Amino acid sequence: MEKKTLLTDCPDAMGLISKITNICYKHQLNIIHNNEFVDHSNRQFFMRTELEGIFNDETFLFDLDRALPTGSHRRLVSSARKKIVIMVTKEAHCLGDILVKAFDGSLDVEIAAVVGNYDTLAPLVEKFDIPFHHVCHQGLSREEHEEKLLAAVQQYQPDYVVLAKYMRILTSNFVASFPNKIINIHHSFLPAFIGAKPYQQAFERGVKIIGATAHFVTNDLDEGPIITQNVIPVDHNFSAEDMARSGRDVEKSVLSKALGLVLDDKVFVHGNRTVIL
Amino acid sequence: MEKKTLLTDCPDAMGLISKITNICYKHQLNIIHNNEFVDHSNRQFFMRTELEGIFNDETFLFDLDRALPTGSHRRLVSSARKKIVIMVTKEAHCLGDILVKAFDGSLDVEIAAVVGNYDTLAPLVEKFDIPFHHVCHQGLSREEHEEKLLAAVQQYQPDYVVLAKYMRILTSNFVASFPNKIINIHHSFLPAFIGAKPYQQAFERGVKIIGATAHFVTNDLDEGPIITQNVIPVDHNFSAEDMARSGRDVEKSVLSKALGLVLDDKVFVHGNRTVIL
Amino acid sequence: MEKKTLLTDCPDAMGLISKITNICYKHQLNIIHNNEFVDHSNRQFFMRTELEGIFNDETFLFDLDRALPTGSHRRLVSSARKKIVIMVTKEAHCLGDILVKAFDGSLDVEIAAVVGNYDTLAPLVEKFDIPFHHVCHQGLSREEHEEKLLAAVQQYQPDYVVLAKYMRILTSNFVASFPNKIINIHHSFLPAFIGAKPYQQAFERGVKIIGATAHFVTNDLDEGPIITQNVIPVDHNFSAEDMARSGRDVEKSVLSKALGLVLDDKVFVHGNRTVIL
Amino acid sequence: MEKKTLLTDCPDAMGLISKITNICYKHQLNIIHNNEFVDHSNRQFFMRTELEGIFNDETFLFDLDRALPTGSHRRLVSSARKKIVIMVTKEAHCLGDILVKAFDGSLDVEIAAVVGNYDTLAPLVEKFDIPFHHVCHQGLSREEHEEKLLAAVQQYQPDYVVLAKYMRILTSNFVASFPNKIINIHHSFLPAFIGAKPYQQAFERGVKIIGATAHFVTNDLDEGPIITQNVIPVDHNFSAEDMARSGRDVEKSVLSKALGLVLDDKVFVHGNRTVIL
Repeated sequence: MEKKTLLTDCPDAMGLISKITNICYKHQLNIIHNNEFVDHSNRQFFMRTELEGIFNDETFLFDLDRALPTGSHRRLVSSARKKIVIMVTKEAHCLGDILVKAFDGSLDVEIAAVVGNYDTLAPLVEKFDIPFHHVCHQGLSREEHEEKLLAAVQQYQPDYVVLAKYMRILTSNFVASFPNKIINIHHSFLPAFIGAKPYQQAFERGVKIIGATAHFVTNDLDEGPIITQNVIPVDHNFSAEDMARSGRDVEKSVLSKALGLVLDDKVFVHGNRTVIL
Repeated sequence: MEKKTLLTDCPDAMGLISKITNICYKHQLNIIHNNEFVDHSNRQFFMRTELEGIFNDETFLFDLDRALPTGSHRRLVSSARKKIVIMVTKEAHCLGDILVKAFDGSLDVEIAAVVGNYDTLAPLVEKFDIPFHHVCHQGLSREEHEEKLLAAVQQYQPDYVVLAKYMRILTSNFVASFPNKIINIHHSFLPAFIGAKPYQQAFERGVKIIGATAHFVTNDLDEGPIITQNVIPVDHNFSAEDMARSGRDVEKSVLSKALGLVLDDKVFVHGNRTVIL
Repeated sequence: MEKKTLLTDCPDAMGLISKITNICYKHQLNIIHNNEFVDHSNRQFFMRTELEGIFNDETFLFDLDRALPTGSHRRLVSSARKKIVIMVTKEAHCLGDILVKAFDGSLDVEIAAVVGNYDTLAPLVEKFDIPFHHVCHQGLSREEHEEKLLAAVQQYQPDYVVLAKYMRILTSNFVASFPNKIINIHHSFLPAFIGAKPYQQAFERGVKIIGATAHFVTNDLDEGPIITQNVIPVDHNFSAEDMARSGRDVEKSVLSKALGLVLDDKVFVHGNRTVIL
Repeated sequence: MEKKTLLTDCPDAMGLISKITNICYKHQLNIIHNNEFVDHSNRQFFMRTELEGIFNDETFLFDLDRALPTGSHRRLVSSARKKIVIMVTKEAHCLGDILVKAFDGSLDVEIAAVVGNYDTLAPLVEKFDIPFHHVCHQGLSREEHEEKLLAAVQQYQPDYVVLAKYMRILTSNFVASFPNKIINIHHSFLPAFIGAKPYQQAFERGVKIIGATAHFVTNDLDEGPIITQNVIPVDHNFSAEDMARSGRDVEKSVLSKALGLVLDDKVFVHGNRTVIL
């Protein structure tokens, strides 16, 4: 008996649930969990089905493809552990959280490597016997630097790339190499405070709540599909530095929650929005 | 074209989603929303299906009953506005919130009457042209008082009874008259601070968070199935009275959220727990 | 014995707490609560002191003025009930909440009148025996309309003007008539989604949290000093309309919390930020 | 110029703020932050004063002691880094969080050692070059085991002992050795679900919110003064195991927040409650 997850994303039509579950039934696959969602504004259907049984992927997907309407996407994902590469600059909190969670099994993931544009975090990474690649940006053009970054990351053929407070903007070339595969943590409640120094911006605006946003990276800075967000209250006692310090715990929990959802194949991307089933 | 909601609650079995959605499909009923949940610890299946079409209730339910396993419960609920009676003592905030929400349509409900063991809130209720019944408990045995309460409530044949800070304990006789039909707001984060004066208890324990709990009423005081809960932070600055004052906003929002879920037929009760779909 | 609140706002200097509390001590005024805050980035000192005793305002303030540095502001505020005028358009939830809270004493405030650019809410207001002024904007220039609004509001000489979902932009002339006296509720987590239709904007951006912001009104749209903010989680199930519906409870609780803080003389405005003591 | 924090805790009296700040003023100590609180129900005064200047501790405290009423407690605490010993059983998340925070400076603390009744976490601790003591409880009476524990902890003379999911009950002898110096994380929103298996209890009760509580340890199980609490929403989808998994992030953030407050000398204990200034 194996476990796999079927992800269906297609134009809405009458009887879709019935058709898909019938095919599972016919193939004697037991439905452990099933969640579906219809985006009525776009007439798009999403379904995530956790299955258990003996799979014949080919015939199962053949039957599905005959049943689903034109323009459908479907994936049958095994429950094998996924592989990530983490990119960092100097801050330890998000990286440290993922390292500890991978270590104790809270996140079921293989951290293939960590790549940093500074070497500040090498000692932390090496404690966990994970390779650290220092790809310094100094003295290099953006293109040259990214070429080296890309090489460092791609040698591991990761399922996902996690930007754990990687503080440089990636070019469209890098982003295009990992479509909907790069997860970033932005240290504000997007779309408030896009761009640089969000805590300083938050301080100057005098907000009473700060937050963090995990999102897939697209070519539009801080505009990619949002996966998770969370916030904490602040008040006049908080300097911009205090906000940054307090924000760390939110950043790391938002990022690792988003990563967990992605690793569990719960996140659909549709246009600039996510559907989480 | 009509809208109805099908609520199915039965022992889990393979192919249930497929069977039920097939029947909807066969009857040309369009599925607007569908949510299902399997409680694996109890092997119980729950599904809520919003349907649109031309209904022949008799043949539809006949087909369903043939398909569902023994021990199934299913209800096909029309989207007609439901009727409630509200019971109160002296505090206005929960009652006032429901009155305003019914007035402006935020809650799609008919408030048939308000019954109070004091007449404090009669002026507020009468502003909204709703009958107020003062059923004073003084000089009466508990049984005598409840007999009068029961008569006052039952004359309206309400779908639900809402205890909006009704501060007396109801006997099992009253409770048995409205099984899983009485919704109470308890002014603590249950099961913390069961019983009388929860804010005083919370103050004495020095908690840093207080809350409120909306639940169905059973014969076990404050032990019925929980529908919604919410909390707010407090600190050493809060006296028991401050907690009570700050708690009011949580109480009213928790109660009206629970009421909204119940009115939308989203709440299943299974043993002492609720499943909200 | 009387109760008054002393609000001090001045350039920071050594020994200020000592100087001010000494003067209270000398005048035999008992300090019930004292809170101070120093904004180190601006070197500004704020203190809120609740006092009890027999007040000779003139000599007390004379002593204070001699002790405080140049550029100081201080106010000695009596605990008398304050008067507000509420401005509305068509939505009942914020207005209804303030009406019920004033009715049951949760907010210690006199609602002198409600002014609306539609008459939709007149029936609700009149239930509470409060005058409603319909100042229709149709067929009038913005200047003409505001002149009438201003007349309608000013006849009551309110301490504060509360915009309880008043959906038109006020001119600088109106705003200048009530400096730091107009409290608005904006239906987003500012500075995200400034301007019109914030829930539609939030839906389109695919955020996972929505919020509301209460702020003083200045001439810069949605840019005034923030008093309170709060948020609720949303997900892909929420249409823009669902967000608007769910947002109402946050809007009303954020607005009435801000109003409570202002009525208790707890809010200092300094530049574009608030200090709440 | 040095920085120290003065903590004053005494019966309330008129003019206390004035007296204390006058003494600071006289000693030319600049007040960086000052917070005070009067517990009116107990007539107790608390003040926390961050000072900067050149300290003569002896004469400063002599002046203070003459000014303060009988029954006063006052401490002048230097800003030197504090030392902790962490006690654990098998779970890595709270320990891992403190290790990473001490590593990157988010918590300004020296972790002198980690003591575990299992050796599961030794590999994690040793990555950070911190001694791990395995004090196995098997085959020992509770008294014998605690004697060894006490020896293992006391050799480091820690300022505080942190129970980071140490899953055994400590005897009054151990507790008495570190009065108000032992910080525990309990995996429920106390006082709900005191004792063993709180997530199982929470699941069975069908709550919609779970939480965690950091508190000082006293002889009454789970009854000591609460420092911080936080919660997260759950629903019918959560098994007891899911609750435990989701609860980990709350547990670790609640514990490290409490630890940060204690290390910053912000927590006063008064009876069974804490005042946090």
